[in-house]
Amino acid sequence: MNLDAAMRLAIQHADGVKGGTYPNPPVGAVILDRDGEVVGVGATEPPGGPHAEVLALRRAGERATGGAAVVTLEPCNHQGRTPPCVDALVAAGVSKVAYAVTDPNPVAAGGASRLAEAGIDVVGGVLADEAAGGPLREWLHKQRTGSPHVTWKFATSIDGRSAAADGTSQWITSEAARADVHRRRAAADAILVGTGTVFIDDPLLTARLPDASLAERQPLRVVVGEREIPSEAKILNDDTRTMVIRTRDPHEVLKALSDRTDVLLEGGPTLAGAFLRAGVIDRILAYVAPILLGGPITAIDDVGVLSISQAQRWRYDGIEPIGPDLLLSLIPS
Amino acid sequence: MNLDAAMRLAIQHADGVKGGTYPNPPVGAVILDRDGEVVGVGATEPPGGPHAEVLALRRAGERATGGAAVVTLEPCNHQGRTPPCVDALVAAGVSKVAYAVTDPNPVAAGGASRLAEAGIDVVGGVLADEAAGGPLREWLHKQRTGSPHVTWKFATSIDGRSAAADGTSQWITSEAARADVHRRRAAADAILVGTGTVFIDDPLLTARLPDASLAERQPLRVVVGEREIPSEAKILNDDTRTMVIRTRDPHEVLKALSDRTDVLLEGGPTLAGAFLRAGVIDRILAYVAPILLGGPITAIDDVGVLSISQAQRWRYDGIEPIGPDLLLSLIPS
Ligand SMILES: NC(=O)c1ccc[n+]([C@@H]2O[C@H](COP(=O)([O-])OP(=O)(O)OC[C@H]3O[C@@H](n4cnc5c(N)ncnc54)[C@H](OP(=O)(O)O)[C@@H]3O)[C@@H](O)[C@H]2O)c1
Ligand SMILES: NC(=O)c1ccc[n+]([C@@H]2O[C@H](COP(=O)([O-])OP(=O)(O)OC[C@H]3O[C@@H](n4cnc5c(N)ncnc54)[C@H](OP(=O)(O)O)[C@@H]3O)[C@@H](O)[C@H]2O)c1
Repeated sequence: MNLDAAMRLAIQHADGVKGGTYPNPPVGAVILDRDGEVVGVGATEPPGGPHAEVLALRRAGERATGGAAVVTLEPCNHQGRTPPCVDALVAAGVSKVAYAVTDPNPVAAGGASRLAEAGIDVVGGVLADEAAGGPLREWLHKQRTGSPHVTWKFATSIDGRSAAADGTSQWITSEAARADVHRRRAAADAILVGTGTVFIDDPLLTARLPDASLAERQPLRVVVGEREIPSEAKILNDDTRTMVIRTRDPHEVLKALSDRTDVLLEGGPTLAGAFLRAGVIDRILAYVAPILLGGPITAIDDVGVLSISQAQRWRYDGIEPIGPDLLLSLIPS
Repeated sequence: MNLDAAMRLAIQHADGVKGGTYPNPPVGAVILDRDGEVVGVGATEPPGGPHAEVLALRRAGERATGGAAVVTLEPCNHQGRTPPCVDALVAAGVSKVAYAVTDPNPVAAGGASRLAEAGIDVVGGVLADEAAGGPLREWLHKQRTGSPHVTWKFATSIDGRSAAADGTSQWITSEAARADVHRRRAAADAILVGTGTVFIDDPLLTARLPDASLAERQPLRVVVGEREIPSEAKILNDDTRTMVIRTRDPHEVLKALSDRTDVLLEGGPTLAGAFLRAGVIDRILAYVAPILLGGPITAIDDVGVLSISQAQRWRYDGIEPIGPDLLLSLIPS
C-alpha cells in the first residue's frame, strides 16, 4: 500500500472515533512494514488511553521495525497523561513517518523535528486537506479560534421548505438520512435548539440507534432562549444531560460552550437565522429531499440579506446521496 | 473497444445533436471493425439528411465489413425521406448490430428482426436506460404520450429563494450555470414563460453564446397568460419566432405545442406552480447556488400540497457540479 492509500485508511479510522476523544484530537495511524504491508492500525482512545500511533505500533509489534508510520496529525512530542508518541516511534525503529497535518498546539508540536533528529525520514502534508477538512476539522477550528466549531444541520425539500403548509413535516427526509443525523449527533459534543423547537416539537434530542435505543455516546443537549421551558419537556429527561442557556446572543452561547469542540445546531429557523446573521456557523449540512412542498414554511427565514450583493456565499465541500436524499455540505467560501 | 464503451460513445454523439433532428430522434452510431477498433461514428442529421447509422457506415467504408454497428436506437426498417437503415447495414456486411432502445414507433420498428433474418447477430438493450433517460428521453416521451416532454428549469439559492428580499436576483448562479442554461435552450424546441416574467424581467429568451451572440439554433419563444404583453417587449423582437398563448390552462398550452418534443419551462413561479399542480412536468432541473438569501421571494410558491402526505415526490436522476453551483435533475418517482 502506498502512503496516500495508507493515509486514507488512517483518516477512515480517525473518522470512526470522532466525538470520543475529547479533549484530544481524533487521530488515525497506520503502520506499514518494510514491504508496504499494513501491519497495524489505530485511532485515538478516550482520554487517558493510548494515542493512535501507540495503538497501531502495539498491533504491529516487531513488524514495525524498518517500516513506516502514517498518521493524520504530526506525532506529539509532549508528556501528557501518556508519554510522547515520538518516543514510541523511535523505540519501534520505524524508518519513515508520514503525517497529514502539522500540530498547531505549541505544547504538543515539534514532533516532526524530534523524529528527524532521530534519523527518521519525515514527510509532512500527505493528504493534508482531506485530514484537515475531515476528522480534524472541528479540533483544528477550536485550536485556532478558541471557540467550538458550529455545524448547522437542516432538513429541507428541494424548494427550501421544512414543513408543508399545514405544519406537518414527518417525514421530509428518509429513514437513511435520519439515521445519518443520529450518527452525527453521537459524534457531536453538544446539540442546540431554540426554545421554539422545544415548545412546538418537544424533541428528545438524543442520539439513537435504528432500533430507537440510546447510542453509547450522548452529546450535551442545549436549549437557547429567554423563555422558561416546561419541566416536563422531554429534552429535560434523564437520558443524558441538558444545559439551558437563557440568552438570545449567539456569542454568549458559544462562550457557555467554550469547553466543547463540535457543536451541532439543529434549529429551528429563528435560532439558525440568529447564528447565521452573527457569522458563527462554520459548516452547513443540508439534507435535501427530492420532494416539492411549496407553501409558507421555509427552512430558514431571515439570514440578514436584503440585496443579492449581500448574499451569504458558501461553497460545496461535499455532495453525498443518502438513500433517496442528498446531503450537501457547505463551508464558508 | 467493447460494446458498452462503444454505446457510451454513440450516446455522447446523440447528445451532441439533440434539438437539431426534429421530428426524427437524436440517434448516435459507432462502427467497430473486426478487431473492435472504432472506424466510424455518426449522429442523426437534420431532417432529409442521413440517419446516424448511414453516416457512420459511410465513414467506416470497407472496414465495416465483418464488424459491428452500435446504435442508440433500433435501426429503422422504414422508407421515409431516406431509405431504411437496415438495408444499409446489410449492404455494408456488418456481422453484428447492437442497439440500446427498441423503436416504439410501429412504422419504423421491426428493424431488429429484419437484421436477424439477414443472418446478422443482433443484441438489443445495451445501456438501454442510459440512452432512454438521456438523448432519447424527450423523443420517447413524445412517442409514448403524444405530448411534448416538459422540463421545468429554475435557479435557486440553497434555501429555495429566487431573489433577495429587495427583488434583486442577478446573479444567483454562476456564469458557468448560465452558459449551461443557454446550451439547453439551444437544444429545446420551445421555451415557456408566463406574462408575469415578461412584464417584470422583459427577457429576450433567446439561446446565446458566451460572447452574447445568438446560437445557431433558436427555440420557439412562448408566452403564456391572458394579459396582452406590450408590443415593444423584447421577447417579440426579430431574433427568432414567438408564440403567445392566451390561456392559463397548462393542458391548452401543451395542445398548442403538440408538434414539439422538448419544451423548457423557465417560469416564473406562478406558471411553474400551475404546471406542477397539473402534473405535466416530466423533469426538474434545479441550478442550486451555494448561497443563502432568506426573505420572502421563494423560487416556487404553491405546488398544490397542503400536508406532508401529499408532497410531490420525485427522485434524483442526475447530480452535476457546474462551476461553483450544483445542477440537480429530478424525474417523477
Ligand atoms: N427543518 C429542520 O431541520 C428543523 C429543525 C429544527 C426545528 N424545525 C422546526 O422549527 C419550528 C420552530 O421554529 P422556531 O424558529 O420557533 O424555533 P427555534 O429557533 O428553535 O426557537 C426560537 C426561539 O429561540 C429563541 N432565540 C434564541 N436566540 C434568538 C435570537 N437571536 N433571536 C430570536 N430568538 C432567539 C427565542 O426564544 P425566547 O423567546 O425564549 O427567547 C425564539 O423564540 C418547529 O416547527 C420545528 O419543527 C425544523
Ligand atoms: N428563479 C428562476 O429560475 C426564475 C425564472 C423565471 C422568472 N423568475 C422570476 O419570477 C418573477 C415573475 O413571477 P410570476 O409568477 O409573476 O411570473 P410568471 O409565472 O412568468 O407569470 C405569471 C402569469 O402567468 C399567467 N398564468 C399562466 N397560467 C397561469 C395559471 N394557471 N394561473 C395563474 N396565472 C397563470 C398569469 O398571467 P395573466 O394574468 O396574463 O393570465 C400570471 O400572472 C420575476 O421576478 C422573475 O424574475 C424566476
